[in-house]
Amino acid sequence: MAPSEQVVRHFQEALEQLKARLLEMGGLAEEQVRLAMQGLVERDRDIIERVMAGDGPLNALHIEIDGRCFTLLALFQPMAVDLRAIVAAVKINTDLERVGDLAINIAEAARHYVNHPPVKKLIDIPRMATIAQAMLRDALDAFVRRDTALAQRVLDQDDLLDDLKTQIFRELITYMLQDPSTIEPALGLILISRHLERIGDHATNIGEDVIFMVSARDVRHHAADGHA
Amino acid sequence: MAPSEQVVRHFQEALEQLKARLLEMGGLAEEQVRLAMQGLVERDRDIIERVMAGDGPLNALHIEIDGRCFTLLALFQPMAVDLRAIVAAVKINTDLERVGDLAINIAEAARHYVNHPPVKKLIDIPRMATIAQAMLRDALDAFVRRDTALAQRVLDQDDLLDDLKTQIFRELITYMLQDPSTIEPALGLILISRHLERIGDHATNIGEDVIFMVSARDVRHHAADGHA
Repeated sequence: MAPSEQVVRHFQEALEQLKARLLEMGGLAEEQVRLAMQGLVERDRDIIERVMAGDGPLNALHIEIDGRCFTLLALFQPMAVDLRAIVAAVKINTDLERVGDLAINIAEAARHYVNHPPVKKLIDIPRMATIAQAMLRDALDAFVRRDTALAQRVLDQDDLLDDLKTQIFRELITYMLQDPSTIEPALGLILISRHLERIGDHATNIGEDVIFMVSARDVRHHAADGHA
Repeated sequence: MAPSEQVVRHFQEALEQLKARLLEMGGLAEEQVRLAMQGLVERDRDIIERVMAGDGPLNALHIEIDGRCFTLLALFQPMAVDLRAIVAAVKINTDLERVGDLAINIAEAARHYVNHPPVKKLIDIPRMATIAQAMLRDALDAFVRRDTALAQRVLDQDDLLDDLKTQIFRELITYMLQDPSTIEPALGLILISRHLERIGDHATNIGEDVIFMVSARDVRHHAADGHA
């Protein structure tokens, strides 16, 4: 039973709105990460506090987007790639909310960090942040454009983050062993590098969802045939 | 248009199977966490390696459960609490897979830890693990029984984990400052306590999903009226 043209158009409009809201949420999450890093690098307590108090809009969007997904599922009962797109949106929404939480975790660690003299000039940690933010942006673009090649490039970036995390860990352990006064701040930087790694993990999750959403079409179609 | 009795029965059967598979996955994830902790506490390299190689069944179930959710959505087009139950299952499935990943992260940290002399007798970290595992079990029981009171009790446990994590952090920093030879192993324990905290976060996510699944019925109903 094919849905009417009007229903299809309404669904597509609602799906476009959903994508726009997800992009907006991605932008907010990325901005929180960018600000947390700026607060850390510039040792700016005001910026750090702003990040810590700034998750309201993200949380509101999280609830709104979840609601939009339920409405789309209930009213339009989409099939195949459209169904997978909505379920992907539910998952992506969760990932973006966690990225917002991680930005706050970074800000919390930064707040402690700036109470100590700097351990070292921060180079690799901002580099990790730049990579993680780009991964997030690309993963969301890949979702909106249903671009599996771009999604695959996001997955390929994850090793870079992992290597930087390991390098940062080794370097900071050396500082800690040489000078105990660096133990607490260096530990803070290690935790921040873990938070950034997890932001990359969330971008990777999104990339995987995009690949499943786009390319599972035939597989699922045959599976559904088997059940029908 | 009310679905036929037979369709309702088929859906309920499929939903029961889905719940059973989620419980099974929860059991596997919990067992991985339990084994990782046993490997750490008993300094048993064989057990640690077994955890690191043991995520195959979990990953297979993750894919299977995702497939079941899509099939249920596509074939039965459920509404209201049933729709929310399936979407909750999609999210819970993701949470459980991450718990499996965290068990492996714990095992990785344990593998390094046992290369050093013990920093201290481990008491609070196993306690964190016990709490996190119980939270996970209760959250899944709450999902299966649609028990919001139990789900709420899961959320209430999260502060306990947070307090233990903070206490462990302070204590280990003291060790590190007193004796630099403890820096690397103590750092491993701090990371393990963070992994356990995140397992508690996943249990909390599941608890929140259960509360939304059960109690949002009326709210969503009115929202749907507004759109219809």
